[in-house]
Amino acid sequence: MRLPLFSHALPNGINPRLAHLQSDPLYHLGFDKDMDLAGLFGDVRIACMGGSADRMTHFAERIATEIPELGVEPTKLHPIGKTERFTLHKVGPVLSVSHGMGIGSIRILLHELTKLLFYAGNSTRDILDRVEYIRIGTSGGIGARIGQVVLSTRAIHPRTLKPVDEIYRMGQTHQFPTEFDAALRERIYAARGDIEVVVGDTLAANCFYEEEPNLFGALDAGYGKAEQREWAEELKRLGMKNTEMEATALAGFCGRAGIAAADVCAVLDRMGGRVTATREELALYSDRAQTVVLRYLRSRLKDLVPTTHQPHP
Amino acid sequence: MRLPLFSHALPNGINPRLAHLQSDPLYHLGFDKDMDLAGLFGDVRIACMGGSADRMTHFAERIATEIPELGVEPTKLHPIGKTERFTLHKVGPVLSVSHGMGIGSIRILLHELTKLLFYAGNSTRDILDRVEYIRIGTSGGIGARIGQVVLSTRAIHPRTLKPVDEIYRMGQTHQFPTEFDAALRERIYAARGDIEVVVGDTLAANCFYEEEPNLFGALDAGYGKAEQREWAEELKRLGMKNTEMEATALAGFCGRAGIAAADVCAVLDRMGGRVTATREELALYSDRAQTVVLRYLRSRLKDLVPTTHQPHP
Repeated sequence: MRLPLFSHALPNGINPRLAHLQSDPLYHLGFDKDMDLAGLFGDVRIACMGGSADRMTHFAERIATEIPELGVEPTKLHPIGKTERFTLHKVGPVLSVSHGMGIGSIRILLHELTKLLFYAGNSTRDILDRVEYIRIGTSGGIGARIGQVVLSTRAIHPRTLKPVDEIYRMGQTHQFPTEFDAALRERIYAARGDIEVVVGDTLAANCFYEEEPNLFGALDAGYGKAEQREWAEELKRLGMKNTEMEATALAGFCGRAGIAAADVCAVLDRMGGRVTATREELALYSDRAQTVVLRYLRSRLKDLVPTTHQPHP
Repeated sequence: MRLPLFSHALPNGINPRLAHLQSDPLYHLGFDKDMDLAGLFGDVRIACMGGSADRMTHFAERIATEIPELGVEPTKLHPIGKTERFTLHKVGPVLSVSHGMGIGSIRILLHELTKLLFYAGNSTRDILDRVEYIRIGTSGGIGARIGQVVLSTRAIHPRTLKPVDEIYRMGQTHQFPTEFDAALRERIYAARGDIEVVVGDTLAANCFYEEEPNLFGALDAGYGKAEQREWAEELKRLGMKNTEMEATALAGFCGRAGIAAADVCAVLDRMGGRVTATREELALYSDRAQTVVLRYLRSRLKDLVPTTHQPHP
């Protein structure tokens, strides 16, 4: 039997090789290290991300409209970089970018966005040490009800049911903790206003139709309503509030990178149910998660708008 | 200690619940069972899928242009359904649809597309028994070189290094075989013409920047060039030709659903390297995988065009 190739634990932190590269194509975002990234992204303070390009474009428009102090004309917004894989808007120091669906897709965004901000800080941690990554998603309710917003404490892996992100290498499993940043979560919670926000763990399933669980996938899942209910009750008992598809990758990556992160998800359906809300209801619930984050952005206005840009009293 | 909730193996095949539903929102595609799916999709014979909406739109245009016998005017093509998550074009009996990046994303497409075709066959297997799912992707080279096209034999899981797809449920791991359809693979290979096509296993990594492996991710991976080379050599020795991010989900799903599937991927870079090909080279290599599939479609022309539509001699 061959011995595993790598038995040591993986260190955390930014890849030291990056500082020495002359160029580095951020292939899926459409930028390169040799561009003026400091000029383009040097002021970034908060990066908001969500699955759908449409929703994150809508969110960029809401930021520009509802926080006019950022000085960005909503009608002048346009995506920057490539839009083939991800769609990125910049509203002053706030980014709004899509990450697609599932851990594979968001991991690509996290790696390239983080490299971009590292390069924008002239290959230092300057920007990374102050930036916040906030995911605004949709989710199925476990302990939380339709219409509520869940603010995640930890991301739970569907195989281990533990708060870990897993990276597989040559048959070895590397696990990383998936606790979200407590201080950022408290700041967002404090800004929630009249929106019902529930705090708790989030299950990150790799499959909307099978791992959540769901009785309405294309394939015969081999379990029925009773087992589905038992499963949901068990997850609720374990403290899970909702289920989505990216939380482990987000929390695991940001924990290793030393970046504060939060996951703010609207609950659109009950775990395992079909999405039967109308288009208007879906938009309403989804907007609610955006509204919580918009209120948070407003609460950070002093940090987002340099004093010289603020109107004098 | 609590006992696992489900210890039985999952059965294969289409979910029997689906036949009895009055309506079923295919949320991410933007259709519903109560629409005239038979009228819209009743003639589908081959569904081509790939990560990027742009590339699959380009592919739809190529099908319409290069196979005029299908009778679809390229300038009249437009996406059908929602384009928020996936972009779907129909060129006669051939679909061209994007699946996003990673197993989480493609699984959502596979479930909804398969339900759509099941409903289009009036809740029978009529269409599913003859349809073929062909993924046209991009990949990193292991045993294959840049510019070649890899036609997959089996999809290899990055944790087990075995030909399995894994679904996690309440802490239990369910494994499904990931062999692609041999007959379909042989038909595609026979149609390849002058394009270099390599046949072999495909590693499906959950992370472009860490599991492939890659020395240029944002995070310090904890290994260097020597270990990366050793890793790549070991994968090559195990028979792997390329690495992408969806093969296990595609082969595992289609095996269970009884649908013939193939994975046809252009090799854009060496495993673990940066994507340094120019935009023109990338387009050229990517087009090559599309060309192989176009030639295959042409070889199936008699099955795709009803005799009454063919020009008389």
